[in-house]
Amino acid sequence: MSDFDVNAYLLRCAALAEDFAGNVLRPERQLPSELYSAMRYSFFAGGKRIRPALAYAAAEAVSGDGTSSIPFGVAIEMIHTYSLIHDDLPSMDDDELRRGKPTCHVKYGEAMAILAGDALLADAFAMLTEEGMAGRYPADTLIKCIKEISLAAGGVGMVAGQAVDILSEGQTLDLPALEFLHTHKTGALIRASVMTGGLSAKASASELEALGRYADRVGLAFQVADDILDVVGDTETLGKPVGSDEGLSKATYPSVMGLAEARKRLVELIDEANEFTIPFGERGEPLRAIATFVGSRNN
Amino acid sequence: MSDFDVNAYLLRCAALAEDFAGNVLRPERQLPSELYSAMRYSFFAGGKRIRPALAYAAAEAVSGDGTSSIPFGVAIEMIHTYSLIHDDLPSMDDDELRRGKPTCHVKYGEAMAILAGDALLADAFAMLTEEGMAGRYPADTLIKCIKEISLAAGGVGMVAGQAVDILSEGQTLDLPALEFLHTHKTGALIRASVMTGGLSAKASASELEALGRYADRVGLAFQVADDILDVVGDTETLGKPVGSDEGLSKATYPSVMGLAEARKRLVELIDEANEFTIPFGERGEPLRAIATFVGSRNN
Repeated sequence: MSDFDVNAYLLRCAALAEDFAGNVLRPERQLPSELYSAMRYSFFAGGKRIRPALAYAAAEAVSGDGTSSIPFGVAIEMIHTYSLIHDDLPSMDDDELRRGKPTCHVKYGEAMAILAGDALLADAFAMLTEEGMAGRYPADTLIKCIKEISLAAGGVGMVAGQAVDILSEGQTLDLPALEFLHTHKTGALIRASVMTGGLSAKASASELEALGRYADRVGLAFQVADDILDVVGDTETLGKPVGSDEGLSKATYPSVMGLAEARKRLVELIDEANEFTIPFGERGEPLRAIATFVGSRNN
Repeated sequence: MSDFDVNAYLLRCAALAEDFAGNVLRPERQLPSELYSAMRYSFFAGGKRIRPALAYAAAEAVSGDGTSSIPFGVAIEMIHTYSLIHDDLPSMDDDELRRGKPTCHVKYGEAMAILAGDALLADAFAMLTEEGMAGRYPADTLIKCIKEISLAAGGVGMVAGQAVDILSEGQTLDLPALEFLHTHKTGALIRASVMTGGLSAKASASELEALGRYADRVGLAFQVADDILDVVGDTETLGKPVGSDEGLSKATYPSVMGLAEARKRLVELIDEANEFTIPFGERGEPLRAIATFVGSRNN
């Protein structure tokens, strides 16, 4: 057992991401202010910032310094935020609370919430192509990172997962369908976080392959853990009503394979993820610590 | 008066854009098929494809060949399509018909319409960074084009205009506020079309400046013409109920400055746009023809 302090690491990565994002989402930057407020409200609503942390840890595994990952982690966190805003809409999951606070559409109205999400998505790419970035990264690295992120966000990535989620409400999904859902809905952006972190640090082809395999396990583990939490957690810990997914008859890992099997699967996924970090030696410690954290998190 | 056949030119550009887009939005490409159907339904719902045509004409003005512009014109048309899908939603303009057909949410449901829009936006950037593109364009040209498009689409561009549009419903806008709305909501993507067309054809700094000035006039003219049409057009010509904007008490050029002044402004804008194409000589003819078309279109 390592004595690596994962909570301190996550806090440090979150602070770096939030500092950077604070400059991107500047109060004076855009009109109308209500759009801007809605974007900031949801982006700064809290959260562990797991995606920026994964990007940081991947860059650190490759080069010993995670700093190069920060813009990419923030871009992905902006896209993650937009997806939460749209997911919470009345026509989607119809959630009124997220992390114990009113969701974006409850606070700003449905139209402004849709637009805030749209802006966060487009602005992620604008941020990655602003002039400072072109000076800091080779143009072909930027292109590769934008490709990873846009594919992960779009119709062959996260949105495909969200669409399956919506379309399968009230249906019984089998395991392959459930894995399609989650590898797309949650896994794609998690993979993009790790891959762009690696790319930003000039990872070799074999390093990128190891990072990709690590990321696929962690992405799935993330969702298995979430599903288990939804069964065994409580409202206070999660900041949303327990069993809310079950209330809408959504398929979950525990409902498809049973709670004990889901827990076993989670342990296997984390073990596999950690194996793929071995080539990075000591520098892979943050990746291992985050995977273990994902497997044992309770909020 | 030139004998340039603008209608034939627009049809040719539209065919090129739709051929290219047909490969991007391939039927077999993605699951779930319902998401994909919704994306295709709205993208191929018709329309003049003015944005791809402007990109094509700008590239032609610079290099004598518009072909280099096609992926950028299509990316912008995908983003334009997403904006129409989201604009039509019940919580936004609540339109049930577009170009005489049921809007995306009427046909596919609100959740799938939101997701189809989201996917079109992200996939535009995925298309611009796929491997074939990296072989065809210098990486820094791609970066510049993605910057133009994402800024034009996001919170300092189109979405800012849409947000002002929503927030100003039922209010009386003055001319500066109305111009802010339209230079953002419509003008930004039109400008991006012209600029990326020019960039794709390796335009010089002075050529880009001339193209930008042309585009700003055409973008505004586009909206002034639209507002005039909404007053004087009829339902059959427009494919949407006449006066629908007025019904929601939205500010328009005729309502702010009167119909006669709006018409005069439209003529001025087209004249100014055309002046900025003079440096391109003969090759600027398509840009001039499209500007004139925008000033005189009736659907």
